[in-house]
Amino acid sequence: MAYETIKYEVADNILTLTLHRPDKLNAFTGQMMFEMIDAFDKADADDDVRAIIVTGEGRAFCAGADLSAGAKTFDYAEREDRPEKSGTPVKPNGEIDWSHESVRDGGGRLTLRIFESLKPVIGAINGPAVGVGVTMQLPMDIRLASENAKFGFVFARRGIVPEACSSWFLPRVVGISQALEWTYSGRVFGAEEALKGGLVRSLHKPEDLLPAARELAREIVDNTAQVSVALTRQMLWRMLGADHPMEAHKIDSRAIYARGASADAKEGVMSFLEKRPATYPCTVSKDMPSFFPWWEERKYE
Amino acid sequence: MAYETIKYEVADNILTLTLHRPDKLNAFTGQMMFEMIDAFDKADADDDVRAIIVTGEGRAFCAGADLSAGAKTFDYAEREDRPEKSGTPVKPNGEIDWSHESVRDGGGRLTLRIFESLKPVIGAINGPAVGVGVTMQLPMDIRLASENAKFGFVFARRGIVPEACSSWFLPRVVGISQALEWTYSGRVFGAEEALKGGLVRSLHKPEDLLPAARELAREIVDNTAQVSVALTRQMLWRMLGADHPMEAHKIDSRAIYARGASADAKEGVMSFLEKRPATYPCTVSKDMPSFFPWWEERKYE
Amino acid sequence: MAYETIKYEVADNILTLTLHRPDKLNAFTGQMMFEMIDAFDKADADDDVRAIIVTGEGRAFCAGADLSAGAKTFDYAEREDRPEKSGTPVKPNGEIDWSHESVRDGGGRLTLRIFESLKPVIGAINGPAVGVGVTMQLPMDIRLASENAKFGFVFARRGIVPEACSSWFLPRVVGISQALEWTYSGRVFGAEEALKGGLVRSLHKPEDLLPAARELAREIVDNTAQVSVALTRQMLWRMLGADHPMEAHKIDSRAIYARGASADAKEGVMSFLEKRPATYPCTVSKDMPSFFPWWEERKYE
Repeated sequence: MAYETIKYEVADNILTLTLHRPDKLNAFTGQMMFEMIDAFDKADADDDVRAIIVTGEGRAFCAGADLSAGAKTFDYAEREDRPEKSGTPVKPNGEIDWSHESVRDGGGRLTLRIFESLKPVIGAINGPAVGVGVTMQLPMDIRLASENAKFGFVFARRGIVPEACSSWFLPRVVGISQALEWTYSGRVFGAEEALKGGLVRSLHKPEDLLPAARELAREIVDNTAQVSVALTRQMLWRMLGADHPMEAHKIDSRAIYARGASADAKEGVMSFLEKRPATYPCTVSKDMPSFFPWWEERKYE
Repeated sequence: MAYETIKYEVADNILTLTLHRPDKLNAFTGQMMFEMIDAFDKADADDDVRAIIVTGEGRAFCAGADLSAGAKTFDYAEREDRPEKSGTPVKPNGEIDWSHESVRDGGGRLTLRIFESLKPVIGAINGPAVGVGVTMQLPMDIRLASENAKFGFVFARRGIVPEACSSWFLPRVVGISQALEWTYSGRVFGAEEALKGGLVRSLHKPEDLLPAARELAREIVDNTAQVSVALTRQMLWRMLGADHPMEAHKIDSRAIYARGASADAKEGVMSFLEKRPATYPCTVSKDMPSFFPWWEERKYE
Repeated sequence: MAYETIKYEVADNILTLTLHRPDKLNAFTGQMMFEMIDAFDKADADDDVRAIIVTGEGRAFCAGADLSAGAKTFDYAEREDRPEKSGTPVKPNGEIDWSHESVRDGGGRLTLRIFESLKPVIGAINGPAVGVGVTMQLPMDIRLASENAKFGFVFARRGIVPEACSSWFLPRVVGISQALEWTYSGRVFGAEEALKGGLVRSLHKPEDLLPAARELAREIVDNTAQVSVALTRQMLWRMLGADHPMEAHKIDSRAIYARGASADAKEGVMSFLEKRPATYPCTVSKDMPSFFPWWEERKYE
């Protein structure tokens, strides 16, 4: 797939994904959704990609849904450019078939894909990020922001609701009270408020943002085993939904057992004892343990 | 229902609910529970109520359970003024029937009702709030406090346990470690500790507290679509209990689809593009989408 | 059981558990796991133990798994000193039997036991704590640290993964983003970063650490009813996994009903009204309510 709305650049094991419609403030479209999902697929399949940075081209990170369709913007039945043109979510009796694929929110398709990523995902929020421009960041692992960044969960001001699974992600990232204040008010707020509220990890001068994101990515890439990181990502995110620590014990027992016998673990321990840098031989494409994935993927219905 | 223990005042689309037994430091009674539940029912049914502020009359917010029954206070079988006089929670074999309605904790009945509110709920904590006086605040969305406020999860000092579903709410609001420290120690602590621990959002001089709560309520009321806010409230609170972001995707896809075709969304987008204030036509009483509510209510058992 | 790797000392109703292999920086072994589990069993059965402090002897809290077996350290099949020597986790067809007891992670056995504790657990982190040395702290209720403490979720640098159920505990204690940054990078970080990230509650000079932990334990022991504290501990931790506040209402209704009729509640209310210290007669060994435990214990499988 050739990308038209994003850029995909790998250097030194770090993939930089850049939202790239700078003349539209990187506004989100169906095409951008498909390209981003494809890019995460590509990254997971490429062992040379050890960390992912997501940022925006130009002055904005992402201005949210492209509103150029005006009043029809969120009226799927009226939009001829919707991803699914085949089929219609209407049952013979005239009721809407809510489980129909074409009902699905585009932002949510992307955030569910990011949720499944095997590589760490760092958001480098370079400028304004509103609507899906901010909700798409929530399944990213760590968010760094420019001092110029702005954020807005503006949905209630557009007559719609928070999407992209943000009702699940946002309270888990910033707490329920902060999540409600931002989504109720729909206010656009600055980087300082985002930092204070726990939405971003750190603020940076515009020119220091990407270097800081890369430094964090480097710390991971240069020091750790890629299979360990891939497992860690899924273990922590998935266990957010588990109802008892025993569920973690089942998985981390299997993982310690399987990984403990691997060449990575032997190298990890020996390099530590010998006080030298480690070179881990295992790769995500070949060496994920046999019990992975340990879940059955949830379907839209 | 005429209220004797609370005041119910609507002005400019904001309902102010005031705990009103000032000579008893607004201590909580069975009557106050029923009146509060009724007030939330009334507010949900009234489209003119777009936000709710809960505060206390006089010097205290709420001193907790009324202890005027002395040693019998929490001994339900000995209390003739308990809400349920009919029936008894004892099985033929002499064991307690734990699923009997009369076993139910009064604080929990209120917090479960607040949990179901369709309108945003802002706590304006004007003074001491202990026992159920603080646990009743936890399902409120946002808490502002007077510098004079005090808080105490004093249950372990009375020989009982945290109630009003606070074992569910408190760790989700302030984190498990802070929740345990406060409930173990039973200490009464000041507004600064509450702010630092994440229990309240901001501190205010006593005379600035209600104005600050109203300003926050106004920001919501003046800028957003009431149906969007009602859906947002239930989406975020309900998804706190969901085990996978797909559960959010199911609901927000339906909600974006339904709301996106509404007159609210068209007005929301067009007013934004035209840089003018919006006037949203939909109301909670008439225009909640057909899939709402998407859950089956949980029963006491 | 006579302990060789830990010390068990009760004074003034406070148990101090000290990891005690100071010449090995208190590195974790199978023996230490069994001794710690036994110590928690003993503490729960002893009404004189009203709070538990866990600390380390000498310069470190716990340096993590003992690496003296070198490259075999995490390779269970190669370790003759593993707890289970009988049986093998291999099925007739040659596949690993992941549900076999001998697959189980030792750190997780300990943290699941701490999770079940009926007594409050305070970590007094006196020095470096890496690997299982830090993950074992996560089911402790409150962590205080020396300014000299260091922490490291170093698993990805050893080619393994976070264990001891930390994928469940850590995001609930410090939030998902902070949890991922620490577990991805495997970095060793200082006490200030631990405080800022929410891993520890407060920092202390080395000589003030144990006194501060004891002062916090005293506040609990001197003021509260032991049965109330035991119930509170399990209510809050268990409700972290509940999907709806009604689950809390079921339990706290039962608990308020049962405890409200107890001699503890009568003493709690009367001592408060009479402004005198309380003396609670009920004990954990004799007076836990009949509905306790309200859960069925989860099995490894």
